[in-house]
Amino acid sequence: MGDPSSIGPEIAIKALSKKEVYNYCNPVLVGDASSIINTIELLKFKVEVNIISDISEALFKFGRIDVYDLRNIKGEQLQYGEVSAVAGHASFEAIKRVIELAIEKQLDATVTGPINKESINMAGHHFSGHTEIYAYYTKTAKFAMLLVHENLRVIHVSTHVSLRQACDLIKKDRIIEVIELLDDACKQFGIKQPKIGVAGLNPHASDGGLFGDEECEEIEPAVKEAISRGFQVEGPVPADTLFSKAKGGMYDGCVAMYHDQGHIPFKMEGFVWDAETHQMKSVQGVNITLGLPIIRCSVDHGTAFDIAGKGVASPDAMLLAIQYATILAQHKYKAK
Amino acid sequence: MGDPSSIGPEIAIKALSKKEVYNYCNPVLVGDASSIINTIELLKFKVEVNIISDISEALFKFGRIDVYDLRNIKGEQLQYGEVSAVAGHASFEAIKRVIELAIEKQLDATVTGPINKESINMAGHHFSGHTEIYAYYTKTAKFAMLLVHENLRVIHVSTHVSLRQACDLIKKDRIIEVIELLDDACKQFGIKQPKIGVAGLNPHASDGGLFGDEECEEIEPAVKEAISRGFQVEGPVPADTLFSKAKGGMYDGCVAMYHDQGHIPFKMEGFVWDAETHQMKSVQGVNITLGLPIIRCSVDHGTAFDIAGKGVASPDAMLLAIQYATILAQHKYKAK
Repeated sequence: MGDPSSIGPEIAIKALSKKEVYNYCNPVLVGDASSIINTIELLKFKVEVNIISDISEALFKFGRIDVYDLRNIKGEQLQYGEVSAVAGHASFEAIKRVIELAIEKQLDATVTGPINKESINMAGHHFSGHTEIYAYYTKTAKFAMLLVHENLRVIHVSTHVSLRQACDLIKKDRIIEVIELLDDACKQFGIKQPKIGVAGLNPHASDGGLFGDEECEEIEPAVKEAISRGFQVEGPVPADTLFSKAKGGMYDGCVAMYHDQGHIPFKMEGFVWDAETHQMKSVQGVNITLGLPIIRCSVDHGTAFDIAGKGVASPDAMLLAIQYATILAQHKYKAK
Repeated sequence: MGDPSSIGPEIAIKALSKKEVYNYCNPVLVGDASSIINTIELLKFKVEVNIISDISEALFKFGRIDVYDLRNIKGEQLQYGEVSAVAGHASFEAIKRVIELAIEKQLDATVTGPINKESINMAGHHFSGHTEIYAYYTKTAKFAMLLVHENLRVIHVSTHVSLRQACDLIKKDRIIEVIELLDDACKQFGIKQPKIGVAGLNPHASDGGLFGDEECEEIEPAVKEAISRGFQVEGPVPADTLFSKAKGGMYDGCVAMYHDQGHIPFKMEGFVWDAETHQMKSVQGVNITLGLPIIRCSVDHGTAFDIAGKGVASPDAMLLAIQYATILAQHKYKAK
């Protein structure tokens, strides 16, 4: 469901109002049913709900959204666009429950909507993002964030840490780890021999050591070892050309050294803004957590508090996230 | 001329073989004439040269390129695509001479081609880039690199330093300085009330201090002070949405906190690669040094040693750089 004060319920309902979704998967919406019903009524969506408290009660029938009700917003009046502990707690519990259901194999894959970190923290859940919640509850030590949009598949050495700390986290072993995760993910998407480009950390990938030594000390040795293990890897490639080349199809996957290095090119492609209305015209791109024992895909946009409750949010990224979750689940269960 | 072993001479000759260039400016090519003539002969370009040793001898006539000859590659055989002190020295002297000619007001504006830093350093000229050479010879303390491509106008707080050092250079005064330079540049391009977006340094612009303190300690105070001085400024904006919004026309100019933060979105837009040939299909975008007493525009691509001497390099960025230099010169001399 995502944050109930955000566009989360709206984009979930809009996505599950598309008939084709029911052709390729059996979706269940997990969260507080009263929030879902309020959103449907407010925005006059023509769809019904089937409130359930167990996955076995789901109908998987187009036109009637199965809502696994967590009943955690009891009568409280939530305002769209506002930070609150109630909304934070409801968004957190929705995430925690889908993780549990997936671990119990009641669900084959999970998809998440946008959350507000301040609300989550206000509710006493001290996590820096979805990825960290998933890692914690699945007891996963080696994981990474992958962003996918058309030709761009970008994995991150680190995510929600300061840029200075991100520099400290550039370590050979971690880089090899994410190369392995990325190679595996590309193969799950049907790319047989993924060609991977690894970004430098410093400008011009340090220009042979002129600006910084992480390329020489950590990135180059990681690339060499990955090649010796049979991966098709190039790098360190200067970050300002790597993603532009990948967009042109020259790499199947990219390793970004820190959050913004991977997110900037990704959002340049996936986010389209309207200069007149200052709204996003369309938003595409999926965020996948690799390395978990369960499948997790997510929209890669935020809560968009400024347009929450207005009915103008685009469900494109949510639809893509559901599609990718389905592809990964098909691959996972076919492989077994 | 740029580096004589690079695509520099080729793209300069190609640009000066366009008749329209002579309609809006009087171009002179500065560098070693023998390199220019060799390139014309090798690539069978249909253009003549007028070798000069003083600007007063220039004809400014389409079909006959005025070459201000520095005679610094005497008989040496240069190989395309090779690093060498001879090429480095020739590229360096071409830059130094255009700077001198502009300071003497013999030229109204200067445009530079790509150079190779290793060659320049091999020749004993220890600079990290064009920008630093210009700052040194014009005795300029406050300068900044601006990249321009369509809606994107991106100025940089720092450029050719390691990412760790870039973090240290995030200082309130410097940020205000580049906001002023950017505002002024936007006005020179005809934007009356430039709207400027300032990027955060850390992911999510630190999410209220969760990941890093540069936003709180340096960037926010700089934005506040710039607003109090009458500039239209917003920020810190998370870097992964700022450039995407600017692309959509929501900001006239952006402040990037470090080299790659500004160069990644810029090259995502301006560089188009062909996945089959692994060559750039087109390259656009101009690099302008702000804060200098003279005008300097440049291509924002590298030496492309892999395709040097093959006749396939695109002069698009060089043509754009000449156009921008002309716009800036017209503004400068109209203003006086």
